[in-house]
Amino acid sequence: MDIEHVLPQDIEKRSMQIIEEELGEVRLDPDKKDIIKRVIHTSADFEYAHKLRFSDNAVESALNAIRHGCTILTDTNMARTGINTGALKKTGGAKICYMADEEVAEKAKANGTTRATASMDKACDIKGPLIVAVGNAPTALFRLADLIDEGKIAPDLVIGVPVGFVNVIQAKERIMTCKVPYIVAAGRKGGSNVAAAIFNALLYKVIRGEDTK
Amino acid sequence: MDIEHVLPQDIEKRSMQIIEEELGEVRLDPDKKDIIKRVIHTSADFEYAHKLRFSDNAVESALNAIRHGCTILTDTNMARTGINTGALKKTGGAKICYMADEEVAEKAKANGTTRATASMDKACDIKGPLIVAVGNAPTALFRLADLIDEGKIAPDLVIGVPVGFVNVIQAKERIMTCKVPYIVAAGRKGGSNVAAAIFNALLYKVIRGEDTK
Repeated sequence: MDIEHVLPQDIEKRSMQIIEEELGEVRLDPDKKDIIKRVIHTSADFEYAHKLRFSDNAVESALNAIRHGCTILTDTNMARTGINTGALKKTGGAKICYMADEEVAEKAKANGTTRATASMDKACDIKGPLIVAVGNAPTALFRLADLIDEGKIAPDLVIGVPVGFVNVIQAKERIMTCKVPYIVAAGRKGGSNVAAAIFNALLYKVIRGEDTK
Repeated sequence: MDIEHVLPQDIEKRSMQIIEEELGEVRLDPDKKDIIKRVIHTSADFEYAHKLRFSDNAVESALNAIRHGCTILTDTNMARTGINTGALKKTGGAKICYMADEEVAEKAKANGTTRATASMDKACDIKGPLIVAVGNAPTALFRLADLIDEGKIAPDLVIGVPVGFVNVIQAKERIMTCKVPYIVAAGRKGGSNVAAAIFNALLYKVIRGEDTK
């Protein structure tokens, strides 16, 4: 296989072109297209063209939150690291993960839960626009769903893309019963990389001015 | 779908059990099994059962490096973050990523390369046992291959799992021509999560004493 000559600054553009070509006849909603393409870009997995579920107002609500300098809370430090720091700064937003937080660790131990669960409780104290991205722990998504139903937290978007084998599908189904804007990857797939990619895609839409303001 | 009742501390064990069940008749080399299973665990993608390529001495060489407190260099901060800090500490190892390094950024700009390329040049100065994990940038893998061929760097293992569409397959083919122990994900798939999972699986083998010492 020959090497394709592409300048460093053009690699991403060329990748997106290839993705678009290979998607071929697949019709993607223009609003969601950039998000789906970026998830495929980060995973090389075309299954995502058919697996991402968006609530009606998900993209609009997320863009609005980002424009107002939202906090993005992730359930792993890996997802937090994957979020484009420079781009986020331009919007005045902040990225947070409580997985290494001592208070969260203690509460999880005391309650016999995962730290991911305890980190959702702590998230209830976050002020202002909020996006929660769960790329790893279905337990976080279950707890978040309960807290939303109880009126203790109201994220502007939930990115529900935990990956794995134990209660992952169930957690995704559960969050989609909540009155909350969501983007969910149906099935077992997802991950910190997918969570970060979805948030970054939304972020880039705002920065390029392709939002709905 | 009913929720499965599993204690937080047992989720990973149960996940691995499910993976094993679903692999069914697929025969995996005992040496490589933990690594393949952990990659499936992190991706929920069973394709990896057939897509990981190991050079003959890859696992042995890696375990030996880890036992001697190796440096693990990654091409993304996301992969670095995904490496289990506590486990690495037990082995006396260190994790490094040069992507936010100013010197690397300057050299990349001056030479018209990616920062990933420039970070491989800088890696030549790392002393002691070394594992290099490339989960993102094929350009890093090409440069690493040249540096290995020129005798300027000799990693104990190259984890070659960049993900994407531009020269990713070619970069993986190139690194497999080098005289270096490698674990490579054939095809377009891979990623920072996969890179971290492979390293963590090796790390856990050493910590649990399941190595070849």
